[in-house]
Amino acid sequence: MKLVIVGGVAGGASAAARARRLAEDAEIVLIERGPDISFANCGLPYHIGGEIAQREKLLVVTPERMRQRFNLDVRVRSSVESIDRTAKKVRIRDLASGREYEESYDKLILAPGAAPLRPPLPGIDLPGIYTLRNLEDMDRIIKTLQANVKQAVIIGAGFIGLELAENLVRRGVHTSVVELQDQVMPPFDKEMTAPIAEKLKSKGVTLLLRQSAEEFEKTADGVAVRLNSGKVLHAELVILGIGVRPESKLASDAGLEVGPRGGIRVNAQMRTTDPDIYAVGDAIEVTDFVTGQPTQVPLAGPANRQGRIAADNVFGRDSRFRGTQGTAIVGVFDLVAALTGASEKTLQRVKRAYRKVYIHPASHAGYYPGAEAMTLKLLFDPETGKILGAQAVGGSGVDKRIDVIAVAIQAGMTVFDLEEMELAYAPQFGSAKDPVNMAGFVAAGLIRDDHPQVDVEYVLAERPYLLDVRTPEEFGRGHFPDAINIPIDDLRGRLGELPKDRQIAVYCQVGQRGYLGTRILRQKGFNAVNVGGGYRTYQLVQAIAAANS
Amino acid sequence: MKLVIVGGVAGGASAAARARRLAEDAEIVLIERGPDISFANCGLPYHIGGEIAQREKLLVVTPERMRQRFNLDVRVRSSVESIDRTAKKVRIRDLASGREYEESYDKLILAPGAAPLRPPLPGIDLPGIYTLRNLEDMDRIIKTLQANVKQAVIIGAGFIGLELAENLVRRGVHTSVVELQDQVMPPFDKEMTAPIAEKLKSKGVTLLLRQSAEEFEKTADGVAVRLNSGKVLHAELVILGIGVRPESKLASDAGLEVGPRGGIRVNAQMRTTDPDIYAVGDAIEVTDFVTGQPTQVPLAGPANRQGRIAADNVFGRDSRFRGTQGTAIVGVFDLVAALTGASEKTLQRVKRAYRKVYIHPASHAGYYPGAEAMTLKLLFDPETGKILGAQAVGGSGVDKRIDVIAVAIQAGMTVFDLEEMELAYAPQFGSAKDPVNMAGFVAAGLIRDDHPQVDVEYVLAERPYLLDVRTPEEFGRGHFPDAINIPIDDLRGRLGELPKDRQIAVYCQVGQRGYLGTRILRQKGFNAVNVGGGYRTYQLVQAIAAANS
Repeated sequence: MKLVIVGGVAGGASAAARARRLAEDAEIVLIERGPDISFANCGLPYHIGGEIAQREKLLVVTPERMRQRFNLDVRVRSSVESIDRTAKKVRIRDLASGREYEESYDKLILAPGAAPLRPPLPGIDLPGIYTLRNLEDMDRIIKTLQANVKQAVIIGAGFIGLELAENLVRRGVHTSVVELQDQVMPPFDKEMTAPIAEKLKSKGVTLLLRQSAEEFEKTADGVAVRLNSGKVLHAELVILGIGVRPESKLASDAGLEVGPRGGIRVNAQMRTTDPDIYAVGDAIEVTDFVTGQPTQVPLAGPANRQGRIAADNVFGRDSRFRGTQGTAIVGVFDLVAALTGASEKTLQRVKRAYRKVYIHPASHAGYYPGAEAMTLKLLFDPETGKILGAQAVGGSGVDKRIDVIAVAIQAGMTVFDLEEMELAYAPQFGSAKDPVNMAGFVAAGLIRDDHPQVDVEYVLAERPYLLDVRTPEEFGRGHFPDAINIPIDDLRGRLGELPKDRQIAVYCQVGQRGYLGTRILRQKGFNAVNVGGGYRTYQLVQAIAAANS
Repeated sequence: MKLVIVGGVAGGASAAARARRLAEDAEIVLIERGPDISFANCGLPYHIGGEIAQREKLLVVTPERMRQRFNLDVRVRSSVESIDRTAKKVRIRDLASGREYEESYDKLILAPGAAPLRPPLPGIDLPGIYTLRNLEDMDRIIKTLQANVKQAVIIGAGFIGLELAENLVRRGVHTSVVELQDQVMPPFDKEMTAPIAEKLKSKGVTLLLRQSAEEFEKTADGVAVRLNSGKVLHAELVILGIGVRPESKLASDAGLEVGPRGGIRVNAQMRTTDPDIYAVGDAIEVTDFVTGQPTQVPLAGPANRQGRIAADNVFGRDSRFRGTQGTAIVGVFDLVAALTGASEKTLQRVKRAYRKVYIHPASHAGYYPGAEAMTLKLLFDPETGKILGAQAVGGSGVDKRIDVIAVAIQAGMTVFDLEEMELAYAPQFGSAKDPVNMAGFVAAGLIRDDHPQVDVEYVLAERPYLLDVRTPEEFGRGHFPDAINIPIDDLRGRLGELPKDRQIAVYCQVGQRGYLGTRILRQKGFNAVNVGGGYRTYQLVQAIAAANS
């Protein structure tokens, strides 16, 4: 068996290691265009910022180590130019010498990754404008930074854009982030990104939403970035982080099926339309675990698993990829945002019925010092309660709750299962009723109709009678327009003040007192509903609306 | 409906709040023996140590707030003395006045908790000897500490004992911990507690295992604690943390069924043998979710859920408790230890077939600063791979991995599911192959027989041919007795040195190179197995053996 693997980073390197463990006598050739294999691409922004001090740390495995330990034929600085599927050969170009040669294969695994988008705008090729994919890109950015960069512009407010913003600020660079959409972190629902936008601004980052770069012009000391709004930003450094495009040209040139967004089509065994060719990682189209739709998710975790699965199948083992949940996380200064499964906007796009709840718990028991605020949004099927997705933003403990819910989604669990979860509790680590349990209680109460809830959007559109059950002090600091205030502890004595002929939307700060108020009123014959996630959720929605007005 | 609830801390307070939300017009009487309800008992050691500075923080909900918000009849300093099941009345004693009176009920929920054990040893009632259950106990201990305590003895090295040890050390008290068993933290398997014992010693705690207190004697400035070993410890403060006994006398006096270890028997609806009486929390016997055996697990999380379930059933809703997994966590200085599901010793006791794997991963990607070492032990069914239990000890990220596996156990997942888990990865938070995935890979490899493994115990008992595939430097720092050393990268060239007629147990530091070595050898016709968890696991086993020799 002769296995040729194209691409030596996450998916390719995983496939190679797995292949060797399965087949000590196979001939395994690993072809990588760059000088490095298996490097830590998720660490690149942090070396730029200095948090990861040593560059060598990013070289998880060197080509030499990979050769020695796994007895691989590793060829770096080598590009696969074409595939001859009939002859089962690839044409390889040695980038140092320019020499081209052929290599035969029995099985081929494509793991070429995805390339950062670089739109053909005027001036895009000026010096000082970079993308960030590999260590060479990183080295160039650092070199530019060392030549005294005062201002930087990042185009794109996704994962890489915001990680870069944090790291440039860490280096004392004044940083502007330009984003075409009306929110940062587009995979998240808009309101969940309000705290991130706020954090960026509080750290001095200039955020320009609903704007895009139209043109770059050389200036005396850098680049002028002209936006579609007419605004011009001056910078000595521009980094494009507007997304990636699967490197699928090699595959499509060879006649392999490629999806509409450029991802190589594979089945659950990672096999392409050619039974001898597999593909893995950022270059492929995968199935969304929740929606069942094709998608592209350029993440390291799935790439690693896919590499393993492809190698299994090459050597006759039927292992299968279950689809991706898109579980992802980003740190933005001391804020953490993470998500798993489908977002609300995805569910709307695919026309999947859902309900949502928001909770705003502390990361651990409030009586123990250091608890941090968190907002957790849970999306679920309105009938069965099956969990469809979750997003959280806050500080410590966000990663844990999203991981827990990621497992629940994998297992096909419902919000009723969240109620029963038995998670580890000591006051430093959680609460006796963990945020995950709380989300389950609120969602299950909604489905059981114990606890009818309406969304902030409904309140803003329908303008029901609004009852604020917080204290007068809380009410005084801000409330829904036209709400009246009866503190929860006075409610039972003041029922006569409330209308019997109108729907009453009850709310508090986060939803808990609103829940009790709703229960009291409903049992007393009022048509009451709780405003899900309370005033805090309204604030998130409003913050986004204000930023975009 | 008139509901009487006996006990107002975790389970009782949860039941009361839930009951009110379900039934606005019910009469709900909450009887609590102490002066406080719903206090943070898990926080008591941390107020003693000063980490939780304000005492009020521990009073999560005051009786007054509970009365007002939930319209409850809360009676503190009141003890229920007896139940007349025929007349459906309880006899209550007002502890302040001594007055006794009767209160009728339609439904009764018992949530009396569990009392710290206080064995009838000579001198046990001397001043300076305490248990820690409530704020009054805590106040007494703090008062004693303020009178200049230099030395303290804690009897019992369980959760409370070790949390107290940490907090006394924080106050500058020289602390000795006496434990009857041959390990600290008895719910954990012995080898997993080696790092905890080491941490305690490094912080100056004197640990006395396999010893028990036999007698207490008054001295000029405190107490002399005589151990069964003959050793005498002097202290101004002694705290007993040797376990708790369900407060089930009220129930058993009323003829309700009680298990052999004193827990009140209930069904999944939390109903006792009397259809009008429910019981919840530390006083009851529950079913172990993994083994199906009756057990007693005094933990706040399950108590809260049980309170909720009892209230549901009182008001005609069929909600059910699924049993407990015993998920628990403890912080011991900067070390964290957590577990969920069955331990190895429990599985042995109930004669349940299992296999185990150990991994020693970092809390997050090694290339990002601040990664902390962790040991994770996973127990699973040897045929199906169903997850039976997990334990972890380390620093940050231990809570997350145990919570993830707790959900996997709840969902009935297997080690093959762990392989596929899509957890949130950025270098600050995890690894592209998370420790949970790694544990799945190792366990699944074992079941699939790709990766036959033996335990350290087998190696020590059977003495197979031992091959150490680490570097000569690692080998030089310590190795299995009689092992020979061939570094993994030289192994392919030195196969001739190895026996074909003997089982070869391959090992490295944590198991990963051992795995590759095993794969190479097996494919070359050797009878090779990997020593699960490698030399690091051997060190844990040896540390415990040494401490007890």
